[in-house]
Amino acid sequence: MLKIYGKVEDGTKAEIMGWVLSIREQKTLAFIIIVDNRKQVQLVVNDIKLLNHVRQNAVISASGTVKKTTQAPGGFEIHVNELRLISKVKKEPPFNIMAKELPSIDLRLDNRALDLRRPYNLDLFNIRATLIRSMREHLYSNGFLEVNTPKIIASASEGGAALFPLMYYDKQAFLAQSPQLYKEELTMPFEKVFEIGPIFRAEPSRTLKHLSESVSLDVEAAFFTNEDLMNLIEGLVKDLLSDIWESSSDLLMRIKAPKLNLPERFNRFTYGKIIDWLSENGRKINFGDDLGQKDLELFGSHINDFYFITEWPIKLKPFYIQPKDSEVTLSFDLMYRELELSSGGERVHDPSILRKNLKGAGLPLKSFRHHLIPYYYGMPPHGGFGMGVERFLMTVTGADNIREVSLYPRDVRRLTP
Amino acid sequence: MLKIYGKVEDGTKAEIMGWVLSIREQKTLAFIIIVDNRKQVQLVVNDIKLLNHVRQNAVISASGTVKKTTQAPGGFEIHVNELRLISKVKKEPPFNIMAKELPSIDLRLDNRALDLRRPYNLDLFNIRATLIRSMREHLYSNGFLEVNTPKIIASASEGGAALFPLMYYDKQAFLAQSPQLYKEELTMPFEKVFEIGPIFRAEPSRTLKHLSESVSLDVEAAFFTNEDLMNLIEGLVKDLLSDIWESSSDLLMRIKAPKLNLPERFNRFTYGKIIDWLSENGRKINFGDDLGQKDLELFGSHINDFYFITEWPIKLKPFYIQPKDSEVTLSFDLMYRELELSSGGERVHDPSILRKNLKGAGLPLKSFRHHLIPYYYGMPPHGGFGMGVERFLMTVTGADNIREVSLYPRDVRRLTP
Repeated sequence: MLKIYGKVEDGTKAEIMGWVLSIREQKTLAFIIIVDNRKQVQLVVNDIKLLNHVRQNAVISASGTVKKTTQAPGGFEIHVNELRLISKVKKEPPFNIMAKELPSIDLRLDNRALDLRRPYNLDLFNIRATLIRSMREHLYSNGFLEVNTPKIIASASEGGAALFPLMYYDKQAFLAQSPQLYKEELTMPFEKVFEIGPIFRAEPSRTLKHLSESVSLDVEAAFFTNEDLMNLIEGLVKDLLSDIWESSSDLLMRIKAPKLNLPERFNRFTYGKIIDWLSENGRKINFGDDLGQKDLELFGSHINDFYFITEWPIKLKPFYIQPKDSEVTLSFDLMYRELELSSGGERVHDPSILRKNLKGAGLPLKSFRHHLIPYYYGMPPHGGFGMGVERFLMTVTGADNIREVSLYPRDVRRLTP
Repeated sequence: MLKIYGKVEDGTKAEIMGWVLSIREQKTLAFIIIVDNRKQVQLVVNDIKLLNHVRQNAVISASGTVKKTTQAPGGFEIHVNELRLISKVKKEPPFNIMAKELPSIDLRLDNRALDLRRPYNLDLFNIRATLIRSMREHLYSNGFLEVNTPKIIASASEGGAALFPLMYYDKQAFLAQSPQLYKEELTMPFEKVFEIGPIFRAEPSRTLKHLSESVSLDVEAAFFTNEDLMNLIEGLVKDLLSDIWESSSDLLMRIKAPKLNLPERFNRFTYGKIIDWLSENGRKINFGDDLGQKDLELFGSHINDFYFITEWPIKLKPFYIQPKDSEVTLSFDLMYRELELSSGGERVHDPSILRKNLKGAGLPLKSFRHHLIPYYYGMPPHGGFGMGVERFLMTVTGADNIREVSLYPRDVRRLTP
């Protein structure tokens, strides 16, 4: 809450409220970096008696006069006449938010609100908000309608994947692992829809790139072919990267975000091509087997870029994915090196094929009864994709643990704070 | 997917893809209203042999030439040379989407994707998306950071209220009934935050204005007093209403949305004043008792406007609300007539008072152990509010059942589709 009563020039009166990021005392004066709504401002305290209980993390207000200087963030500092302690530090914090050596991630997550005061995190979560805002803008301008689909659902949308069970009054329910079936239905009235919201997956293992609760961008569009969808994502990724590097380059540079390779056109490799390449490079994969972490690392490091893996085998994809022929599907994963960022494709819109696929996958038709209803009343051909916000943010920022880019991550061991 | 190959003038070639809202056959020709990405376009089919299986709800593509006319939506129609059926209607729909008489809400919700094709719903959910977008724009421009807080939580944030229990791997967990504790913690690093996301309340009763899952705008800001918060909401509500009436007046008029009274300044009535007024008007309320539906209807119809109820008794508010004195709190509800739209206030930021309040409310300190941690490290004074998106949308659109303004509503009896 910075108020400058006039122009930013020497002598103008100013007031500020915020929390103390750092304090450096010299003999007769002290320099305080105060964070005011995520922006750093330097205070100069000429009378160190004013300091009293002020220390790192305390919340203070100050008033004084502006002095321009290239040495301070923002190009000015405030010479303080009055300093008031608003909220003092009542216990010794478990770590110093300015420490060069990073405390363990578990200690930081246990004290997450404090951890978020580290300058890295102030920048990171500003970038995250900008990224999500930019996603929406891109989709608005492409004629997509923003929707909200239910997170409490009666049956599994993808069949096998791990779900969190829930007591819904007297009924069994689940947390939605994606808005898949709902966004598909919504192409029937609305044609092009998107949602950015939480998804829940009971991942049994603990890795650096899985969360039990994450935020997903879900997009679905009537009349979009597999190729249209890949072009849409390609445009989206390019726009996102240019938007955030345009609006937040100072933040990205401070957190040492990598400059990503952004090819004019993202390569498309069929699954078949990739298993051939892997065989030639010493990793034998049978057609129909999934690509493992090691496979993707080998192939991804060879590409070192954004690329698509297309034409996944039918048996690796859920019941709603449109086959291309008797073996492969009209599907794709967007990858950056070895990391899967997005998965999508054309969908089946013929209810009799959907029923056949559900039976084939061993899924009970009864559970999909409500979902199948609209397919009899003129369901358009459609396709879409899901993109993990945290995964994309890992790529953008260079974070090596997905927990770093979620405010309050959830995994098999962590449910608090 | 409308493509017009040139200017909108007679004779220009055009192609379109969409679904049939209505079809009107005359002897030798037919008029089709096709919905293309939520916009209506009129087709004129001069050769009715082209119609074949085309009927209401079918998905078709057509090509032909533009003819300008003031009779058609958008000021032009397409005279069709070629018509292709893309997805036909395979079963008789349970209701006509153009019927004057509205089918029962349960029949409509059971067939929600079809129901959403009614022109009323095409407009309504466009307005909903515009409203949410406008909420975000207002908060961005006021310096708020958009955040995502976890929906799976270890303990109840408000104590008593009804929660959905969940199995989180081998632990008991709950669905968040609000982002309350998280948004408060986040004012510590980020000062001003907001989130628009799902909230979950196991409402035991079935009313016209409660959902078990809804979307909430949650706002929290360091250094904001109760008065600051009410001013923020007042500005927000005014901006939202002027934004949507500016951008979507045609849609609002089509759905017969009411023109709301929007006073220059929203009245503030203390809870004490309201119970006095109610006594004078024949409804005796003891200080400390909640205001019931009937009370709010009586008082609300007398006001007929947006207004705040302030200074709620301490015993009616959760543990985190800041007292004003020994009896009442620094809190408010935003009302429109008898409908509560938002609830907020200043929060306690002193951990010892929080601990005392938790004990007083009979809540186990252990469950709030993680939440209390940051309060010892320089927590700023802060306040905030939650606003129900569906409730606000009811007010804006004049819908009398909250289920109408949620795509897939959830209540004690409804978990599907």
